[in-house]
Amino acid sequence: MIKVVILGSGNVATHLTKAFIKSKNVEVVQVYTRSDTSNKIKKIEYTNDLSKLKNADVYFIAISDDAITDFSKKLNLKNKLVVHTSGSVTLQELKCNARKGVFYPLQTINKKSKIKFKNVPICIETEYEEDYILLEKLAKSISEKVFKIDSEKRKHLHLAAVFVNNFTNHLYKIGNDICNEKNVSFEILKPLIKETANKIKYITPEEAQTGPAKRKDYKTIKKHLSFLDKEQQKIYNLLSNSISNNELTKNN
Amino acid sequence: MIKVVILGSGNVATHLTKAFIKSKNVEVVQVYTRSDTSNKIKKIEYTNDLSKLKNADVYFIAISDDAITDFSKKLNLKNKLVVHTSGSVTLQELKCNARKGVFYPLQTINKKSKIKFKNVPICIETEYEEDYILLEKLAKSISEKVFKIDSEKRKHLHLAAVFVNNFTNHLYKIGNDICNEKNVSFEILKPLIKETANKIKYITPEEAQTGPAKRKDYKTIKKHLSFLDKEQQKIYNLLSNSISNNELTKNN
Repeated sequence: MIKVVILGSGNVATHLTKAFIKSKNVEVVQVYTRSDTSNKIKKIEYTNDLSKLKNADVYFIAISDDAITDFSKKLNLKNKLVVHTSGSVTLQELKCNARKGVFYPLQTINKKSKIKFKNVPICIETEYEEDYILLEKLAKSISEKVFKIDSEKRKHLHLAAVFVNNFTNHLYKIGNDICNEKNVSFEILKPLIKETANKIKYITPEEAQTGPAKRKDYKTIKKHLSFLDKEQQKIYNLLSNSISNNELTKNN
Repeated sequence: MIKVVILGSGNVATHLTKAFIKSKNVEVVQVYTRSDTSNKIKKIEYTNDLSKLKNADVYFIAISDDAITDFSKKLNLKNKLVVHTSGSVTLQELKCNARKGVFYPLQTINKKSKIKFKNVPICIETEYEEDYILLEKLAKSISEKVFKIDSEKRKHLHLAAVFVNNFTNHLYKIGNDICNEKNVSFEILKPLIKETANKIKYITPEEAQTGPAKRKDYKTIKKHLSFLDKEQQKIYNLLSNSISNNELTKNN
Protein backbone atom coordinates (compact mmCIF):
# COMPACT_ATOMS: atom_id res chain seq x y z
CA MET A 1 0.00 0.00 0.00
CA ILE A 2 1.47 3.36 -1.03
CA LYS A 3 0.56 6.08 1.45
CA VAL A 4 -0.01 9.56 0.07
CA VAL A 5 -0.81 12.98 1.53
CA ILE A 6 -2.48 15.55 -0.71
CA LEU A 7 -1.63 19.17 -0.06
CA GLY A 8 -4.36 21.33 -1.58
CA SER A 9 -8.09 21.22 -2.23
CA GLY A 10 -8.46 22.74 -5.71
CA ASN A 11 -9.46 20.98 -8.91
CA VAL A 12 -6.35 18.88 -9.42
CA ALA A 13 -6.11 18.01 -5.70
CA THR A 14 -9.74 16.92 -5.56
CA HIS A 15 -9.67 14.82 -8.74
CA LEU A 16 -6.35 13.24 -7.78
CA THR A 17 -7.59 12.40 -4.29
CA LYS A 18 -10.70 10.75 -5.73
CA ALA A 19 -8.67 8.76 -8.26
CA PHE A 20 -6.27 7.52 -5.56
CA ILE A 21 -9.16 6.55 -3.28
CA LYS A 22 -10.50 4.30 -6.04
CA SER A 23 -7.10 2.67 -6.56
CA LYS A 24 -6.45 -0.52 -4.60
CA ASN A 25 -2.75 0.12 -4.11
CA VAL A 26 -2.97 3.61 -2.70
CA GLU A 27 -4.10 5.00 0.65
CA VAL A 28 -4.82 8.72 1.00
CA VAL A 29 -3.86 9.15 4.63
CA GLN A 30 -4.52 12.89 4.82
CA VAL A 31 -5.51 16.01 2.90
CA TYR A 32 -4.09 19.38 3.90
CA THR A 33 -6.13 22.48 3.14
CA ARG A 34 -5.80 26.00 4.52
CA SER A 35 -9.44 26.80 4.16
CA ASP A 36 -12.24 24.98 5.89
CA THR A 37 -13.50 23.55 2.63
CA SER A 38 -17.15 22.60 2.43
CA ASN A 39 -16.45 20.01 -0.28
CA LYS A 40 -14.75 17.54 1.99
CA ILE A 41 -14.49 14.01 0.71
CA LYS A 42 -15.97 11.43 3.07
CA LYS A 43 -13.71 9.16 5.12
CA ILE A 44 -10.67 11.36 4.45
CA GLU A 45 -8.77 12.94 7.32
CA TYR A 46 -8.27 16.67 6.83
CA THR A 47 -5.83 19.04 8.51
CA ASN A 48 -5.07 22.75 8.20
CA ASP A 49 -1.85 22.51 10.20
CA LEU A 50 1.37 21.79 8.30
CA SER A 51 3.09 20.69 11.50
CA LYS A 52 0.62 17.84 11.83
CA LEU A 53 1.24 16.12 8.50
CA LYS A 54 1.08 12.36 8.78
CA ASN A 55 3.72 9.92 7.70
CA ALA A 56 3.43 8.99 4.00
CA ASP A 57 5.43 7.72 1.02
CA VAL A 58 4.59 10.67 -1.22
CA TYR A 59 3.39 14.23 -0.52
CA PHE A 60 1.55 15.86 -3.44
CA ILE A 61 1.60 19.66 -3.69
CA ALA A 62 -1.48 20.32 -5.82
CA ILE A 63 -1.92 24.07 -5.55
CA SER A 64 -1.76 26.97 -8.04
CA ASP A 65 1.49 27.12 -10.02
CA ASP A 66 2.76 30.43 -8.71
CA ALA A 67 2.30 29.42 -5.06
CA ILE A 68 4.29 26.17 -5.25
CA THR A 69 7.78 27.51 -4.46
CA ASP A 70 6.73 29.56 -1.42
CA PHE A 71 4.56 26.75 -0.13
CA SER A 72 7.34 24.19 -0.48
CA LYS A 73 9.59 26.33 1.72
CA LYS A 74 7.17 25.84 4.61
CA LEU A 75 7.39 22.08 4.49
CA ASN A 76 9.49 20.20 6.96
CA LEU A 77 9.62 16.79 5.30
CA LYS A 78 13.31 15.98 5.32
CA ASN A 79 14.19 12.98 3.15
CA LYS A 80 10.53 12.41 2.29
CA LEU A 81 9.35 12.43 -1.35
CA VAL A 82 7.58 15.68 -2.22
CA VAL A 83 6.12 16.17 -5.70
CA HIS A 84 4.17 18.92 -7.41
CA THR A 85 1.54 18.43 -10.10
CA SER A 86 2.23 21.44 -12.32
CA GLY A 87 3.18 21.52 -15.98
CA SER A 88 4.91 24.87 -15.90
CA VAL A 89 6.99 24.62 -12.72
CA THR A 90 10.41 22.92 -12.79
CA LEU A 91 11.51 20.28 -10.30
CA GLN A 92 14.13 22.70 -8.97
CA GLU A 93 11.48 25.23 -8.03
CA LEU A 94 10.49 22.95 -5.17
CA LYS A 95 12.44 24.49 -2.28
CA CYS A 96 12.38 22.01 0.55
CA ASN A 97 14.84 19.61 2.11
CA ALA A 98 13.03 16.62 0.69
CA ARG A 99 13.51 14.31 -2.29
CA LYS A 100 11.80 16.05 -5.17
CA GLY A 101 9.59 14.95 -8.00
CA VAL A 102 6.90 15.99 -10.46
CA PHE A 103 3.66 14.14 -11.15
CA TYR A 104 1.89 16.13 -13.87
CA PRO A 105 -1.48 14.91 -15.13
CA LEU A 106 -1.80 16.49 -18.57
CA GLN A 107 -5.51 17.14 -18.75
CA THR A 108 -7.97 20.01 -18.52
CA ILE A 109 -9.38 19.69 -15.06
CA ASN A 110 -12.10 21.79 -13.52
CA LYS A 111 -14.60 21.05 -10.80
CA LYS A 112 -17.57 20.61 -13.12
CA SER A 113 -16.04 18.01 -15.41
CA LYS A 114 -15.61 14.34 -14.67
CA ILE A 115 -12.16 12.96 -15.32
CA LYS A 116 -11.43 9.43 -16.37
CA PHE A 117 -7.83 9.25 -15.15
CA LYS A 118 -7.35 6.06 -17.13
CA ASN A 119 -6.80 8.15 -20.28
CA VAL A 120 -4.93 11.04 -18.71
CA PRO A 121 -1.21 11.08 -19.59
CA ILE A 122 0.85 11.42 -16.42
CA CYS A 123 4.31 12.96 -16.86
CA ILE A 124 6.81 11.99 -14.19
CA GLU A 125 10.18 13.39 -13.18
CA THR A 126 12.30 12.59 -10.12
CA GLU A 127 15.80 13.16 -8.78
CA TYR A 128 16.33 9.49 -7.93
CA GLU A 129 15.58 6.34 -9.89
CA GLU A 130 13.89 4.61 -6.91
CA ASP A 131 11.49 7.55 -6.59
CA TYR A 132 10.72 7.24 -10.28
CA ILE A 133 9.76 3.62 -9.78
CA LEU A 134 7.45 4.57 -6.90
CA LEU A 135 5.75 7.41 -8.82
CA GLU A 136 5.41 5.22 -11.89
CA LYS A 137 3.63 2.61 -9.77
CA LEU A 138 1.31 5.32 -8.41
CA ALA A 139 0.66 6.72 -11.88
CA LYS A 140 -0.04 3.30 -13.36
CA SER A 141 -2.52 2.61 -10.59
CA ILE A 142 -4.74 5.38 -11.99
CA SER A 143 -3.69 5.85 -15.64
CA GLU A 144 -2.70 3.76 -18.65
CA LYS A 145 -0.50 6.53 -20.05
CA VAL A 146 2.67 7.24 -18.08
CA PHE A 147 5.63 9.17 -19.49
CA LYS A 148 9.08 10.12 -18.21
CA ILE A 149 9.40 13.83 -19.02
CA ASP A 150 12.07 16.16 -17.63
CA SER A 151 11.45 19.78 -16.59
CA GLU A 152 12.71 21.24 -19.87
CA LYS A 153 10.44 19.07 -22.01
CA ARG A 154 7.54 19.42 -19.60
CA LYS A 155 7.47 23.21 -19.79
CA HIS A 156 7.23 23.03 -23.58
CA LEU A 157 4.58 20.36 -23.36
CA HIS A 158 2.63 22.61 -21.00
CA LEU A 159 3.00 25.49 -23.44
CA ALA A 160 1.76 23.32 -26.31
CA ALA A 161 -1.15 22.31 -24.08
CA VAL A 162 -2.10 25.98 -23.68
CA PHE A 163 -2.45 26.23 -27.46
CA VAL A 164 -4.39 23.01 -28.04
CA ASN A 165 -6.58 23.36 -24.95
CA ASN A 166 -6.94 26.88 -23.50
CA PHE A 167 -6.76 28.73 -26.81
CA THR A 168 -8.79 26.15 -28.69
CA ASN A 169 -11.49 26.40 -26.05
CA HIS A 170 -11.50 30.18 -26.48
CA LEU A 171 -12.08 29.70 -30.22
CA TYR A 172 -15.06 27.51 -29.32
CA LYS A 173 -16.27 30.40 -27.18
CA ILE A 174 -16.00 32.84 -30.09
CA GLY A 175 -17.84 30.35 -32.32
CA ASN A 176 -20.55 30.14 -29.67
CA ASP A 177 -20.77 33.96 -29.48
CA ILE A 178 -21.18 34.25 -33.26
CA CYS A 179 -23.98 31.65 -33.18
CA ASN A 180 -25.74 33.28 -30.22
CA GLU A 181 -25.71 36.66 -31.89
CA LYS A 182 -27.59 35.31 -34.91
CA ASN A 183 -29.80 32.90 -32.99
CA VAL A 184 -28.18 29.85 -34.55
CA SER A 185 -27.85 26.77 -32.34
CA PHE A 186 -24.25 26.07 -31.33
CA GLU A 187 -25.28 22.39 -31.33
CA ILE A 188 -24.96 22.36 -35.14
CA LEU A 189 -21.21 22.94 -34.75
CA LYS A 190 -20.54 20.16 -32.25
CA PRO A 191 -20.06 17.33 -34.77
CA LEU A 192 -17.53 19.55 -36.57
CA ILE A 193 -15.67 20.27 -33.32
CA LYS A 194 -15.57 16.56 -32.56
CA GLU A 195 -14.32 15.67 -36.04
CA THR A 196 -11.66 18.40 -35.95
CA ALA A 197 -10.21 16.80 -32.82
CA ASN A 198 -10.70 13.32 -34.21
CA LYS A 199 -9.03 13.91 -37.58
CA ILE A 200 -5.54 14.45 -36.16
CA LYS A 201 -5.49 10.95 -34.73
CA TYR A 202 -4.73 9.72 -38.25
CA ILE A 203 -3.22 12.68 -40.12
CA THR A 204 -1.02 15.58 -39.00
CA PRO A 205 -2.66 18.96 -38.24
CA GLU A 206 -0.85 20.31 -41.29
CA GLU A 207 -2.47 17.71 -43.53
CA ALA A 208 -5.83 18.30 -41.87
CA GLN A 209 -5.87 22.05 -42.54
CA THR A 210 -8.76 23.34 -44.66
CA GLY A 211 -10.62 26.63 -45.02
CA PRO A 212 -10.46 30.04 -46.73
CA ALA A 213 -6.98 30.95 -45.39
CA LYS A 214 -5.48 27.68 -46.62
CA ARG A 215 -7.16 28.15 -50.03
CA LYS A 216 -6.24 31.86 -50.08
CA ASP A 217 -9.90 32.58 -50.75
CA TYR A 218 -9.66 36.33 -50.05
CA LYS A 219 -13.24 36.99 -51.12
CA THR A 220 -14.59 34.82 -48.31
CA ILE A 221 -12.02 36.18 -45.84
CA LYS A 222 -13.09 39.76 -46.61
CA LYS A 223 -16.74 38.83 -46.21
CA HIS A 224 -16.06 37.10 -42.88
CA LEU A 225 -14.14 40.09 -41.51
CA SER A 226 -17.12 42.34 -42.20
CA PHE A 227 -19.28 40.25 -39.83
CA LEU A 228 -16.91 40.43 -36.86
CA ASP A 229 -16.24 42.87 -34.04
CA LYS A 230 -12.78 44.44 -33.70
CA GLU A 231 -11.32 41.88 -31.31
CA GLN A 232 -12.65 38.96 -33.36
CA GLN A 233 -11.26 40.59 -36.54
CA LYS A 234 -7.77 40.75 -35.01
CA ILE A 235 -7.89 37.07 -34.12
CA TYR A 236 -9.32 36.13 -37.53
CA ASN A 237 -6.62 38.11 -39.35
CA LEU A 238 -3.71 36.86 -37.29
CA LEU A 239 -4.67 33.19 -37.51
CA SER A 240 -5.54 33.43 -41.22
CA ASN A 241 -2.19 35.05 -41.98
CA SER A 242 -0.40 32.42 -39.96
CA ILE A 243 -2.16 29.65 -41.94
CA SER A 244 -1.41 31.37 -45.28
CA ASN A 245 2.25 31.99 -44.34
CA ASN A 246 2.62 28.35 -43.49
CA GLU A 247 1.32 27.43 -46.95
CA LEU A 248 3.88 29.78 -48.52
CA THR A 249 6.75 28.29 -46.50
CA LYS A 250 5.64 24.79 -47.38
CA ASN A 251 5.52 25.50 -51.11
CA ASN A 252 8.88 27.25 -51.29
CA MET B 1 -35.81 7.11 -56.47
CA ILE B 2 -34.44 10.65 -56.41
CA LYS B 3 -32.15 11.30 -59.36
CA VAL B 4 -29.17 13.58 -58.81
CA VAL B 5 -26.35 14.99 -60.93
CA ILE B 6 -23.15 16.07 -59.19
CA LEU B 7 -21.28 18.99 -60.76
CA GLY B 8 -17.70 18.87 -59.55
CA SER B 9 -15.05 16.36 -58.53
CA GLY B 10 -13.41 17.93 -55.48
CA ASN B 11 -13.60 16.77 -51.86
CA VAL B 12 -17.24 17.63 -51.18
CA ALA B 13 -18.37 16.37 -54.59
CA THR B 14 -16.57 13.05 -54.13
CA HIS B 15 -17.77 12.39 -50.57
CA LEU B 16 -21.31 13.43 -51.44
CA THR B 17 -21.36 11.20 -54.51
CA LYS B 18 -20.18 8.24 -52.45
CA ALA B 19 -22.75 8.89 -49.72
CA PHE B 20 -25.58 9.11 -52.26
CA ILE B 21 -24.44 5.92 -53.98
CA LYS B 22 -24.81 4.09 -50.66
CA SER B 23 -28.30 5.48 -50.11
CA LYS B 24 -31.17 3.32 -51.30
CA ASN B 25 -33.40 6.23 -52.28
CA VAL B 26 -30.93 8.12 -54.45
CA GLU B 27 -29.50 7.50 -57.89
CA VAL B 28 -26.43 9.43 -59.03
CA VAL B 29 -27.16 9.55 -62.73
CA GLN B 30 -24.09 11.59 -63.72
CA VAL B 31 -21.03 13.45 -62.51
CA TYR B 32 -19.79 16.49 -64.40
CA THR B 33 -16.10 17.35 -64.20
CA ARG B 34 -14.00 19.62 -66.39
CA SER B 35 -10.83 17.70 -65.86
CA ASP B 36 -10.27 14.11 -66.86
CA THR B 37 -10.09 13.03 -63.25
CA SER B 38 -8.14 9.90 -62.47
CA ASN B 39 -10.15 9.24 -59.31
CA LYS B 40 -13.30 8.22 -61.09
CA ILE B 41 -15.85 6.31 -59.06
CA LYS B 42 -16.83 3.00 -60.60
CA LYS B 43 -20.24 2.56 -62.26
CA ILE B 44 -20.75 6.33 -62.42
CA GLU B 45 -21.30 8.06 -65.73
CA TYR B 46 -19.01 11.06 -66.20
CA THR B 47 -19.25 13.99 -68.60
CA ASN B 48 -17.15 17.09 -69.24
CA ASP B 49 -19.81 18.72 -71.42
CA LEU B 50 -22.40 20.92 -69.72
CA SER B 51 -24.72 20.64 -72.74
CA LYS B 52 -24.99 16.92 -72.13
CA LEU B 53 -26.30 16.94 -68.58
CA LYS B 54 -28.83 14.21 -67.96
CA ASN B 55 -32.30 14.66 -66.60
CA ALA B 56 -32.38 14.69 -62.78
CA ASP B 57 -34.40 15.92 -59.80
CA VAL B 58 -31.53 17.84 -58.23
CA TYR B 59 -28.26 19.24 -59.62
CA PHE B 60 -25.52 19.73 -57.00
CA ILE B 61 -22.88 22.39 -57.66
CA ALA B 62 -20.02 21.18 -55.45
CA ILE B 63 -17.11 23.37 -56.55
CA SER B 64 -14.97 26.01 -54.82
CA ASP B 65 -16.97 28.84 -53.26
CA ASP B 66 -15.68 31.65 -55.42
CA ALA B 67 -16.42 29.81 -58.67
CA ILE B 68 -20.08 29.05 -57.93
CA THR B 69 -21.69 32.21 -59.33
CA ASP B 70 -19.83 32.15 -62.66
CA PHE B 71 -20.37 28.44 -63.04
CA SER B 72 -24.10 28.73 -62.35
CA LYS B 73 -24.43 31.25 -65.21
CA LYS B 74 -23.33 28.56 -67.65
CA LEU B 75 -26.10 26.18 -66.67
CA ASN B 76 -29.15 25.80 -68.81
CA LEU B 77 -31.46 23.98 -66.43
CA LYS B 78 -34.65 26.01 -66.63
CA ASN B 79 -37.13 25.10 -63.89
CA LYS B 80 -34.86 22.36 -62.57
CA LEU B 81 -33.66 22.39 -58.96
CA VAL B 82 -30.04 23.54 -58.74
CA VAL B 83 -28.33 23.67 -55.33
CA HIS B 84 -24.86 24.54 -54.14
CA THR B 85 -23.08 23.00 -51.15
CA SER B 86 -21.27 26.04 -49.78
CA GLY B 87 -21.50 27.60 -46.34
CA SER B 88 -20.38 31.05 -47.39
CA VAL B 89 -22.36 31.61 -50.60
CA THR B 90 -25.96 32.87 -50.45
CA LEU B 91 -28.82 31.28 -52.34
CA GLN B 92 -29.14 34.45 -54.45
CA GLU B 93 -25.58 34.08 -55.70
CA LEU B 94 -26.75 31.18 -57.84
CA LYS B 95 -27.34 32.93 -61.18
CA CYS B 96 -29.30 30.54 -63.33
CA ASN B 97 -32.88 30.28 -64.52
CA ALA B 98 -33.54 27.30 -62.26
CA ARG B 99 -35.21 26.77 -58.90
CA LYS B 100 -32.49 27.44 -56.34
CA GLY B 101 -31.42 25.79 -53.14
CA VAL B 102 -28.54 25.16 -50.75
CA PHE B 103 -27.45 21.82 -49.35
CA TYR B 104 -24.56 22.57 -47.00
CA PRO B 105 -22.88 19.68 -45.19
CA LEU B 106 -21.21 21.32 -42.18
CA GLN B 107 -18.11 19.20 -41.81
CA THR B 108 -14.39 19.36 -42.48
CA ILE B 109 -13.97 17.37 -45.62
CA ASN B 110 -10.71 16.53 -47.33
CA LYS B 111 -9.73 13.65 -49.55
CA LYS B 112 -7.72 11.80 -46.93
CA SER B 113 -10.41 11.64 -44.27
CA LYS B 114 -13.33 9.27 -44.17
CA ILE B 115 -16.67 10.91 -43.55
CA LYS B 116 -19.56 9.29 -41.76
CA PHE B 117 -22.33 11.40 -43.22
CA LYS B 118 -24.76 10.06 -40.62
CA ASN B 119 -23.37 12.57 -38.10
CA VAL B 120 -22.81 15.47 -40.49
CA PRO B 121 -25.32 18.31 -40.00
CA ILE B 122 -26.85 19.25 -43.33
CA CYS B 123 -28.19 22.80 -43.59
CA ILE B 124 -30.88 23.29 -46.20
CA GLU B 125 -32.39 26.35 -47.82
CA THR B 126 -34.76 26.59 -50.80
CA GLU B 127 -36.98 29.10 -52.57
CA TYR B 128 -39.98 26.79 -52.57
CA GLU B 129 -41.47 24.60 -49.89
CA GLU B 130 -41.79 21.56 -52.20
CA ASP B 131 -38.07 21.79 -52.97
CA TYR B 132 -37.35 21.91 -49.25
CA ILE B 133 -39.26 18.66 -48.80
CA LEU B 134 -37.25 17.02 -51.58
CA LEU B 135 -33.86 18.19 -50.23
CA GLU B 136 -34.87 17.19 -46.72
CA LYS B 137 -35.62 13.69 -48.00
CA LEU B 138 -32.24 13.56 -49.72
CA ALA B 139 -30.45 14.88 -46.63
CA LYS B 140 -32.21 12.42 -44.34
CA SER B 141 -31.19 9.58 -46.62
CA ILE B 142 -27.55 10.22 -45.70
CA SER B 143 -27.62 12.12 -42.36
CA GLU B 144 -29.47 12.10 -39.06
CA LYS B 145 -28.97 15.83 -38.58
CA VAL B 146 -30.90 18.07 -40.94
CA PHE B 147 -31.51 21.78 -40.32
CA LYS B 148 -33.41 24.56 -42.09
CA ILE B 149 -30.94 27.45 -42.21
CA ASP B 150 -31.37 30.60 -44.33
CA SER B 151 -28.50 32.35 -46.13
CA GLU B 152 -28.05 35.00 -43.43
CA LYS B 153 -27.75 32.43 -40.64
CA ARG B 154 -25.66 30.08 -42.77
CA LYS B 155 -22.97 32.63 -43.46
CA HIS B 156 -22.53 33.21 -39.73
CA LEU B 157 -22.56 29.50 -39.07
CA HIS B 158 -19.83 29.12 -41.68
CA LEU B 159 -17.84 31.89 -40.03
CA ALA B 160 -18.19 30.22 -36.62
CA ALA B 161 -17.05 26.98 -38.27
CA VAL B 162 -13.85 28.70 -39.42
CA PHE B 163 -13.07 29.51 -35.79
CA VAL B 164 -13.89 26.11 -34.28
CA ASN B 165 -12.39 24.09 -37.12
CA ASN B 166 -9.81 25.88 -39.32
CA PHE B 167 -8.34 28.04 -36.57
CA THR B 168 -8.51 25.30 -33.95
CA ASN B 169 -6.67 22.96 -36.30
CA HIS B 170 -4.00 25.61 -36.77
CA LEU B 171 -3.55 25.76 -32.98
CA TYR B 172 -3.06 21.98 -33.05
CA LYS B 173 -0.39 22.60 -35.68
CA ILE B 174 1.41 25.11 -33.46
CA GLY B 175 1.20 22.65 -30.54
CA ASN B 176 2.69 20.00 -32.80
CA ASP B 177 5.50 22.39 -33.85
CA ILE B 178 6.35 23.17 -30.22
CA CYS B 179 6.52 19.44 -29.42
CA ASN B 180 8.63 18.61 -32.49
CA GLU B 181 11.13 21.31 -31.66
CA LYS B 182 11.80 19.78 -28.24
CA ASN B 183 11.50 16.16 -29.31
CA VAL B 184 8.37 15.60 -27.26
CA SER B 185 5.78 13.23 -28.71
CA PHE B 186 2.62 15.05 -29.87
CA GLU B 187 0.79 11.84 -28.91
CA ILE B 188 0.90 12.93 -25.25
CA LEU B 189 -1.38 15.86 -26.14
CA LYS B 190 -4.03 13.88 -27.98
CA PRO B 191 -6.11 12.87 -24.94
CA LEU B 192 -6.18 16.57 -23.96
CA ILE B 193 -7.31 17.60 -27.43
CA LYS B 194 -10.05 14.98 -27.32
CA GLU B 195 -11.22 16.06 -23.85
CA THR B 196 -11.19 19.75 -24.84
CA ALA B 197 -13.64 18.96 -27.64
CA ASN B 198 -15.62 16.60 -25.44
CA LYS B 199 -16.06 18.93 -22.48
CA ILE B 200 -18.27 21.40 -24.31
CA LYS B 201 -20.89 18.76 -24.89
CA TYR B 202 -21.95 19.26 -21.28
CA ILE B 203 -20.78 22.74 -20.30
CA THR B 204 -20.41 25.99 -22.27
CA PRO B 205 -16.96 26.95 -23.63
CA GLU B 206 -17.00 29.84 -21.18
CA GLU B 207 -17.45 27.47 -18.24
CA ALA B 208 -14.81 25.14 -19.66
CA GLN B 209 -12.10 27.80 -19.89
CA THR B 210 -8.96 27.14 -17.83
CA GLY B 211 -5.30 28.17 -18.08
CA PRO B 212 -2.86 30.98 -17.26
CA ALA B 213 -4.82 33.72 -19.11
CA LYS B 214 -8.03 32.83 -17.30
CA ARG B 215 -6.19 32.79 -13.94
CA LYS B 216 -4.27 35.96 -14.85
CA ASP B 217 -1.10 34.03 -14.00
CA TYR B 218 1.28 36.56 -15.59
CA LYS B 219 4.38 34.77 -14.35
CA THR B 220 3.54 31.69 -16.43
CA ILE B 221 2.44 33.83 -19.39
CA LYS B 222 5.78 35.68 -19.38
CA LYS B 223 7.68 32.40 -19.19
CA HIS B 224 5.66 30.94 -22.08
CA LEU B 225 6.27 33.97 -24.29
CA SER B 226 10.02 33.56 -23.86
CA PHE B 227 9.85 30.07 -25.46
CA LEU B 228 7.99 31.18 -28.61
CA ASP B 229 8.97 32.64 -31.96
CA LYS B 230 7.58 36.02 -33.00
CA GLU B 231 4.52 34.77 -34.85
CA GLN B 232 3.63 32.35 -32.06
CA GLN B 233 4.10 35.16 -29.50
CA LYS B 234 1.61 37.35 -31.35
CA ILE B 235 -0.98 34.57 -31.33
CA TYR B 236 -0.30 33.73 -27.68
CA ASN B 237 -0.64 37.38 -26.65
CA LEU B 238 -3.76 38.10 -28.63
CA LEU B 239 -5.64 35.00 -27.47
CA SER B 240 -4.50 35.41 -23.86
CA ASN B 241 -5.67 39.03 -23.83
CA SER B 242 -8.98 38.01 -25.34
CA ILE B 243 -9.48 35.40 -22.60
CA SER B 244 -8.50 37.86 -19.86
CA ASN B 245 -10.71 40.62 -21.27
CA ASN B 246 -13.62 38.23 -21.29
CA GLU B 247 -13.04 37.51 -17.60
CA LEU B 248 -13.04 41.26 -16.90
CA THR B 249 -16.30 41.79 -18.79
CA LYS B 250 -17.90 38.84 -17.01
CA ASN B 251 -16.97 40.11 -13.56
CA ASN B 252 -18.08 43.71 -14.10
